[in-house]
Amino acid sequence: MIVTLLTDFGLSDTYAGVMKGVILARAPEVNVVDLTHDVPPQAVDEAAFLLDGAWRYFPEGSVHVAVVDPGVGTSRRRLAIFSGGHYFVGPDNGVLSAAIPEAIRGFRRPGEGYDARTISLPAGIAAVNIESQMILTQMISATFEGRDVFAPAAAHLAKGGSLSDLGPPVPELLTFPAFRALRVGNRIEGVVLRGDRFGNLITDIAAVDLPPSPVFTVAGRSLHLAASYAAADGPATIVGSSGLIEIAMPNGSAAVVLGAGAGDRVVAA
Amino acid sequence: MIVTLLTDFGLSDTYAGVMKGVILARAPEVNVVDLTHDVPPQAVDEAAFLLDGAWRYFPEGSVHVAVVDPGVGTSRRRLAIFSGGHYFVGPDNGVLSAAIPEAIRGFRRPGEGYDARTISLPAGIAAVNIESQMILTQMISATFEGRDVFAPAAAHLAKGGSLSDLGPPVPELLTFPAFRALRVGNRIEGVVLRGDRFGNLITDIAAVDLPPSPVFTVAGRSLHLAASYAAADGPATIVGSSGLIEIAMPNGSAAVVLGAGAGDRVVAA
Amino acid sequence: MIVTLLTDFGLSDTYAGVMKGVILARAPEVNVVDLTHDVPPQAVDEAAFLLDGAWRYFPEGSVHVAVVDPGVGTSRRRLAIFSGGHYFVGPDNGVLSAAIPEAIRGFRRPGEGYDARTISLPAGIAAVNIESQMILTQMISATFEGRDVFAPAAAHLAKGGSLSDLGPPVPELLTFPAFRALRVGNRIEGVVLRGDRFGNLITDIAAVDLPPSPVFTVAGRSLHLAASYAAADGPATIVGSSGLIEIAMPNGSAAVVLGAGAGDRVVAA
Repeated sequence: MIVTLLTDFGLSDTYAGVMKGVILARAPEVNVVDLTHDVPPQAVDEAAFLLDGAWRYFPEGSVHVAVVDPGVGTSRRRLAIFSGGHYFVGPDNGVLSAAIPEAIRGFRRPGEGYDARTISLPAGIAAVNIESQMILTQMISATFEGRDVFAPAAAHLAKGGSLSDLGPPVPELLTFPAFRALRVGNRIEGVVLRGDRFGNLITDIAAVDLPPSPVFTVAGRSLHLAASYAAADGPATIVGSSGLIEIAMPNGSAAVVLGAGAGDRVVAA
Repeated sequence: MIVTLLTDFGLSDTYAGVMKGVILARAPEVNVVDLTHDVPPQAVDEAAFLLDGAWRYFPEGSVHVAVVDPGVGTSRRRLAIFSGGHYFVGPDNGVLSAAIPEAIRGFRRPGEGYDARTISLPAGIAAVNIESQMILTQMISATFEGRDVFAPAAAHLAKGGSLSDLGPPVPELLTFPAFRALRVGNRIEGVVLRGDRFGNLITDIAAVDLPPSPVFTVAGRSLHLAASYAAADGPATIVGSSGLIEIAMPNGSAAVVLGAGAGDRVVAA
Repeated sequence: MIVTLLTDFGLSDTYAGVMKGVILARAPEVNVVDLTHDVPPQAVDEAAFLLDGAWRYFPEGSVHVAVVDPGVGTSRRRLAIFSGGHYFVGPDNGVLSAAIPEAIRGFRRPGEGYDARTISLPAGIAAVNIESQMILTQMISATFEGRDVFAPAAAHLAKGGSLSDLGPPVPELLTFPAFRALRVGNRIEGVVLRGDRFGNLITDIAAVDLPPSPVFTVAGRSLHLAASYAAADGPATIVGSSGLIEIAMPNGSAAVVLGAGAGDRVVAA
């Protein structure tokens, strides 16, 4: 059984390693896989977006733990969710939006940002507030519920334990809108969601939503679609690996060349 | 069986990966867990502190390998220790201090730094100098005993091999004092041990040692205890996940705001 | 069974984690080991050098996946190779040079750089072009063949699947010359291949090739061999863990002290 970890803990400290110790002490057969621990500190929205794009590549029954948690130590809920054959574990701040279908999360309106909002739990998805003292046997620190709450809960689920053992059902939870810009007529007004290591700028514009022969406008430049990184001879857009439009620069960084980054507007028309 | 790794090798080179290859070639069933490979180069004291706070979260029988080793290739001892139901493997420079109880390691006096000193091996703890040619079958390089000595020794122990197969007992070893400031009357004079990724400053002041209603002085500022990161409205102290006092800044970096870092004095009174 | 990963994806994105999901969904028993994901972006030569020095430490039957791939999405071949009892999987751009013996790859001439060239597949080594639709069941993106091609191919091989299932044999492939400077008389003209995290400069001069009592010239300085890092009292050369000469500075960075880095000339005479 697989437990994935997605946090903003970085790799310079032992926080991620300690979470693995807690999981393996309780569920020795588990395979713990790092999605990333380098989410920018407290960037709940980026973490939600990253999990959204990654969880489907893991087998059914996997447990996805996401801990980007500025509210640690407060009374916000601690969620465990079963949805789409996978488990999701983390704080109730939108970081687990991947567990909720896009149509239910709704869409950002042009001009709005990505803010988490409360939705009612949809049919077919189970979610509980983790609070069972049987699972969380140790003292719970005010600063590291990844270790004290979410890791033990994940180990419980990975061993085949039931969701309802963890705590009572919750009627609602926080989610981000779908990370996908709406097309209005032949125009999509999107934003850059994230820059990656190569300086590629990943937008919330889905390739399947594009109008015919789209031209992209970003940072005052007009860009066209290229078939591959190597086929572009300057900054260009490309269909990225999640089906979202990326802005790329062959053998260089689009982020640097365009002076653009997360939050910047990108229009396709 | 679990082998943990704690080094200053970084993740840009293949050093950590190669250690895993050596371990898995000899003990295919082992689960190798990274504690961190980003200890500042040759910072033996920080590595010792990190291991001290992490090993207890792993199950009994785990093997903890720590390689921060400015003396690699010299005649310093190479230790394997059995203590508290866990194994510890690494150079004899204090990095394995976690294997020795705090009371035996002794305490830093106010005004002193953290320097490793030689102690006699206490009763109930076994330690050997790794030198058996049966275990270390290959040529030993002058620069990478993590691969040539410590990884094979860890694999041997993880497979259930005995400590005495690795080499002869040692009568003494180097340890750091307990990473815990002494309380004198109602006053504790501590230091910042380490900054973490969030800019939190982790001190050597244990929460259980605090006087009533403590006020903290650091970098010319007076700080008070907060119940959680979110409950603070400026730089504050908080009980960290290892029971040590941390200095934190909600949605920011205490290290930056206070201009403070490892080695700086913190007084609680 | 072990699958190793060597990429330039970094660890801030979920690319490496997603590759693990794809592998484990198809081959749950596999042990996935990171060699490194921090190869400088698109530095195919450094990736080839790193794999060259690492794969031998893994057990026979291991599958080594290397994805540093500026040509992703183009028609360049996608290779799976069986050589020396190990499998190698990645694009046909030289990154898999480790699969080909040094004598066949040939040697760089003094003054030349490291450029990949086409060689005929030598006897005793099998290589195919990965193209079987049975293995690559999903849509193949233009930007992430690590996920869509190389991870499924690696899972197939790790489960004991045959090379020929993946696609037709290839008659030739790209390789870098051996990462080893030629000795001419009593003189070796080498280059710095890479700086590591400690500021050590790793050269392509093999210790076994050195003339007697060698003196090294780099960045206008004359250096001598030291027996260990600790035995040097200033910048010095040392026999590194792969048998290559490294330039090191005790308790400091040779790269900084000498102002030298990858590509710089080093002469031993």
